[in-house]
Amino acid sequence: MASASSSTLLSLSNLSFISPTPIRSRASPFLPRKQKPHRRPPPLRCQKMYVPGFGEASPEAKAGKNLHNFFTYVAVRIVLAQLESYNPEAYGELMEFVERNSLNDGDEFCANLMRESSRHKGLALRVLEVRSAYCKNDFEWDNLKRLASKIVDESNTRLMRDYVLETSHEEN
Amino acid sequence: MASASSSTLLSLSNLSFISPTPIRSRASPFLPRKQKPHRRPPPLRCQKMYVPGFGEASPEAKAGKNLHNFFTYVAVRIVLAQLESYNPEAYGELMEFVERNSLNDGDEFCANLMRESSRHKGLALRVLEVRSAYCKNDFEWDNLKRLASKIVDESNTRLMRDYVLETSHEEN
Repeated sequence: MASASSSTLLSLSNLSFISPTPIRSRASPFLPRKQKPHRRPPPLRCQKMYVPGFGEASPEAKAGKNLHNFFTYVAVRIVLAQLESYNPEAYGELMEFVERNSLNDGDEFCANLMRESSRHKGLALRVLEVRSAYCKNDFEWDNLKRLASKIVDESNTRLMRDYVLETSHEEN
Repeated sequence: MASASSSTLLSLSNLSFISPTPIRSRASPFLPRKQKPHRRPPPLRCQKMYVPGFGEASPEAKAGKNLHNFFTYVAVRIVLAQLESYNPEAYGELMEFVERNSLNDGDEFCANLMRESSRHKGLALRVLEVRSAYCKNDFEWDNLKRLASKIVDESNTRLMRDYVLETSHEEN
């Protein structure tokens, strides 16, 4: 059990870079100019950058789906930590199940857990409850936004600084 | 080019289920009772569930890091869509680079892009700029929260309904 290691690889995007749907004209300033000037639709008021290739789903939906899997992973950890203290038997059963089953797809994990045994079914219902409560009450959404902005800023600065340092070293 | 397919696999967690750090007592109602009653520290006021095993980083930081990679992926798509319309040469160069280099690690991708050639360096700086602007202005954070809650609710309902349907079918 001490060697248990479960890595959760979540596919943020299996989409091709070639969009299967025709490119939407949302916010694209580069419309073809074949139409007659006066028959062109009024310009779109959306000032956002055009994001291609997400088909029906938005980037937000894609990210939401991935967070959903992440919340399932977190919920399993929370339940394990709770069980460890006062129900070692259930803890062992859930840990053993986690070692055998991938958490990449949270819903598939829960579906399998429900069907493992009647005791596992109880654990699965608890995971469902915890992931819902975690998503709605505990997860710090404002903090997520703040941290993501900070990571972008710091990464951009670091990448440019490293590049400048590297090239100035070469010049010497 | 039409066969270009790039899947972005993001590792949401490579952490072991066994926490490398001692379990923090935050929000854990199961404190050891060896201390004298009157010398116990005042109970923690945090009502959140205890999430073990994220070490120094919080779940929010973990999710933020993953969103950062996702934003890089989105930024590359945005830049590609912009270039396709008015700079086919740069579009071809970036697309060719994307086919050769994984976007799993956004920062590594950008670092490599900067060092590919001076033209690629310009594209890399544009990707850095776009991912920052996308994160801060375009990405709909409120929508993300709403969608994630909706996905959790719908998934939980669906999982339980499927299970009930399946078991009632067996009983007949």
